Amino acid sequence: MDNQKVDKKELGITPRSADYSKWYLDVIREADLAEHAPVKGCMIIKPYGYAIWENIQSAMDKMIKETGVSNAYFPLFIPQSYLTKEAEHVEGFAPECAVVTHAGGKKLEEPFVVRPTSETIMYEVFSRWIQSYRDLPLLINQWANVVRWELRPRLFLRTTEFLWQEGHTAHATEDEAETRTKQMLGVYKKLAEDFLAIPVIDGVKSESEKFAGAVRTYAIEAMMQDGKALQAGTSHMLGQNFAKAFNVKFVDENGAEQYAWQTSWGVSTRLIGALIMAHSDDKGLVLPPNIAPIQVVIVPVWVTNEDKMKVLAESEKMEKQLKDLGLSVKIDSRDLRPGPRFFEWEKKGVPIRIEIGPKDIEKGAYVFARRDTGEKENISIDQAANYTSSLLNIIQNNLFERSLAFRNSHTREVGSYDELKEAITGGFAIAHWCGDAKCEEKIKEETKATIRVLLPEKALKPNKCVLCGGKSDQRAVFAKNY
Amino acid sequence: MDNQKVDKKELGITPRSADYSKWYLDVIREADLAEHAPVKGCMIIKPYGYAIWENIQSAMDKMIKETGVSNAYFPLFIPQSYLTKEAEHVEGFAPECAVVTHAGGKKLEEPFVVRPTSETIMYEVFSRWIQSYRDLPLLINQWANVVRWELRPRLFLRTTEFLWQEGHTAHATEDEAETRTKQMLGVYKKLAEDFLAIPVIDGVKSESEKFAGAVRTYAIEAMMQDGKALQAGTSHMLGQNFAKAFNVKFVDENGAEQYAWQTSWGVSTRLIGALIMAHSDDKGLVLPPNIAPIQVVIVPVWVTNEDKMKVLAESEKMEKQLKDLGLSVKIDSRDLRPGPRFFEWEKKGVPIRIEIGPKDIEKGAYVFARRDTGEKENISIDQAANYTSSLLNIIQNNLFERSLAFRNSHTREVGSYDELKEAITGGFAIAHWCGDAKCEEKIKEETKATIRVLLPEKALKPNKCVLCGGKSDQRAVFAKNY
Repeated sequence: MDNQKVDKKELGITPRSADYSKWYLDVIREADLAEHAPVKGCMIIKPYGYAIWENIQSAMDKMIKETGVSNAYFPLFIPQSYLTKEAEHVEGFAPECAVVTHAGGKKLEEPFVVRPTSETIMYEVFSRWIQSYRDLPLLINQWANVVRWELRPRLFLRTTEFLWQEGHTAHATEDEAETRTKQMLGVYKKLAEDFLAIPVIDGVKSESEKFAGAVRTYAIEAMMQDGKALQAGTSHMLGQNFAKAFNVKFVDENGAEQYAWQTSWGVSTRLIGALIMAHSDDKGLVLPPNIAPIQVVIVPVWVTNEDKMKVLAESEKMEKQLKDLGLSVKIDSRDLRPGPRFFEWEKKGVPIRIEIGPKDIEKGAYVFARRDTGEKENISIDQAANYTSSLLNIIQNNLFERSLAFRNSHTREVGSYDELKEAITGGFAIAHWCGDAKCEEKIKEETKATIRVLLPEKALKPNKCVLCGGKSDQRAVFAKNY
Repeated sequence: MDNQKVDKKELGITPRSADYSKWYLDVIREADLAEHAPVKGCMIIKPYGYAIWENIQSAMDKMIKETGVSNAYFPLFIPQSYLTKEAEHVEGFAPECAVVTHAGGKKLEEPFVVRPTSETIMYEVFSRWIQSYRDLPLLINQWANVVRWELRPRLFLRTTEFLWQEGHTAHATEDEAETRTKQMLGVYKKLAEDFLAIPVIDGVKSESEKFAGAVRTYAIEAMMQDGKALQAGTSHMLGQNFAKAFNVKFVDENGAEQYAWQTSWGVSTRLIGALIMAHSDDKGLVLPPNIAPIQVVIVPVWVTNEDKMKVLAESEKMEKQLKDLGLSVKIDSRDLRPGPRFFEWEKKGVPIRIEIGPKDIEKGAYVFARRDTGEKENISIDQAANYTSSLLNIIQNNLFERSLAFRNSHTREVGSYDELKEAITGGFAIAHWCGDAKCEEKIKEETKATIRVLLPEKALKPNKCVLCGGKSDQRAVFAKNY
């Protein structure tokens, strides 16, 4: 009977090959990560999903602080007039804003927007905080919720409200701001690759894809298992655009007044969507050990009560050894048959399962099951703890290498528009582009592929634009995207 | 010249005796904790203030999780109709709500309120999550921003937007819910006393002061240095009120359908206001070591360049030793005279200052200055690190004991209304109260003192209500409050 239940549950996840979108939502539901809120477009992040976010936050927060940035908190509400001060910015964000018109039982004199991002409210304040070059650089980050009205929401990927960090800095020179922009892109790349095990391509966005109000947007782009791209983090060189709009000035060492150079950068709960789509399989979620809320689950197996006492004692011994190594471990000793317990933790993506039964104890070896490959092996009890540690590293690396190999085998350098069209059906196309927004727009219209980033390396010799044949010295990554 | 600057800055803090309210705002400004936002009633929490909040969060989050509660995240927006489902709740909160009427460029069919608290949105969801007794207890917490329109905002104490944690639980029995309510009150008391060094009185709120929709509200109340009370945390026994409004039902072990018993509880950035008013003095902020972002500041002092090299090297040696002990330490080696540097860290409430000059190195002893008492002593270099550790404990305890002594000397058991009136001019009055809301209301009207909590211990023998002389078996803490 238990097996039947399990079979039904297994049917709960649509295979990727049948319907990738449905598979994505099934994985989220079966792993108990999140669900749609009663409020359109909003999301409830359930405890297991939130624990993943806490791990991402904790890794990210540490790295941000190591670059000298301090956390602070700015208000949720922004006077509507602020948003209009930077022309491109308001054009980009006004259509997505939620507007508070009434409060405290009265109609407000000036409506507030709920922050879609905090450049305007922060820089209005920065203009008061910054007076002299001694006040620079100003390096601020905040962890916050933001709201951007979504017509076609998708859990984690596009939600009306999402959680993120947004960093905002002000500098005395253009060089310093540019360096900070790239530095934070590097931090994001490290987060994606070392913690989430997701290889990313970093580069510059085209004019049409850049942040509203920025001079230049850098991004990291990841490939999902359906070959589509997902923008996993952005870092914006704002130049003096906002400084001029908000009067962020300083007196330099020579007594001259100058506008500050600014940057902003952010990653969001969208990363959890990337995590799911990069690694998971038809059995459910697969989590990299460096970010998994539970790295190891111990499943004691017994028939008689006497056995139960014995395997529970051994499980607790093992648990203690693993905790002493700093690992996150859980014993699942529920009165259920092993099958349903195995499947549950598989669906939740726990990297390693250790099975402890009376016969295993007799034999002096436990069964280790890897979530990433499904492989099982017997590991002698006295080596089990140390082996767990090294196996977690192996799994972490394997997930990264597997994703990298997948991306490489689904990325093609293309010379013609036909080749591009073919490549972007299931992956990335790297192609020359003349830089004309019309070519970019036409390719998007005809193929639904956008320029994800321009590669930072200039081409060795000029070449031809993949669409118009015009002169091109830059290569772009084209892909359909989330 | 430097000294003149310092004097001016020192004038920046109004003495408590002259104007307590102004002193409070001066301390916040001079310690660089927070400022009013351009949006009425909102607050910008500056890096140093936010670092205190991060320490409070981290201590609190750990304690909450240790009781078996998981973090999650629910939406910012609540459909207006939800709020109306629990009659007392809507009456209490509707007047304070900010309302989103437009989004994505259109008028919304149903307006949303920005959460003033999340009972309604969470319990609507709980009603789907909970089906059987096996799903109970459900133990959820979230760290979030909430909005309650404030007409007379005050930094940290009353702001339109504030940060907090809100815990929400559902249980199978009344007993279990009651136990959880008290357990969390105990956690809050521990946070206040062991981390913030603020002694608190715990008890039950009167009907008129309880949470809108609760059966019973428990609270911890702290005394500020002006003798006023500050509610520092609340824990609500919700009974089945919300369960009935939101249909939170479960099938019990006998197959019968029952409404769940619920609790909610929260503490907020208001605690930083309590921290300031409990310990700080006319020189500025005073922080308990257990919550201070910087526990020790090392100020190297030099005249010649040769000395500078020497004292910096010694300072770094000291810093390393303290960091190895797990302490949070900062060296202030700015090219400023010692005075301004001393004053700055005094204003910021750093518990210990260690002065390291060439003569100190020669003598083999550093000058230790305590922020709480202002005392200075010479400590031999080889004992300096260990002494720092124990001095931090001494300071933590001293702040608690000092606050406790202050509270005790400003709390009077009163037998008559005249005595009550006198006592509440500068402290707490403990008095018998018959339980009639009319007596409570009249005392509030005439003296501005409210019942902060009813003491949990029943009186040994019945006595007379301090106002009407009617029979009373309970004692209440009366005080003016923030």
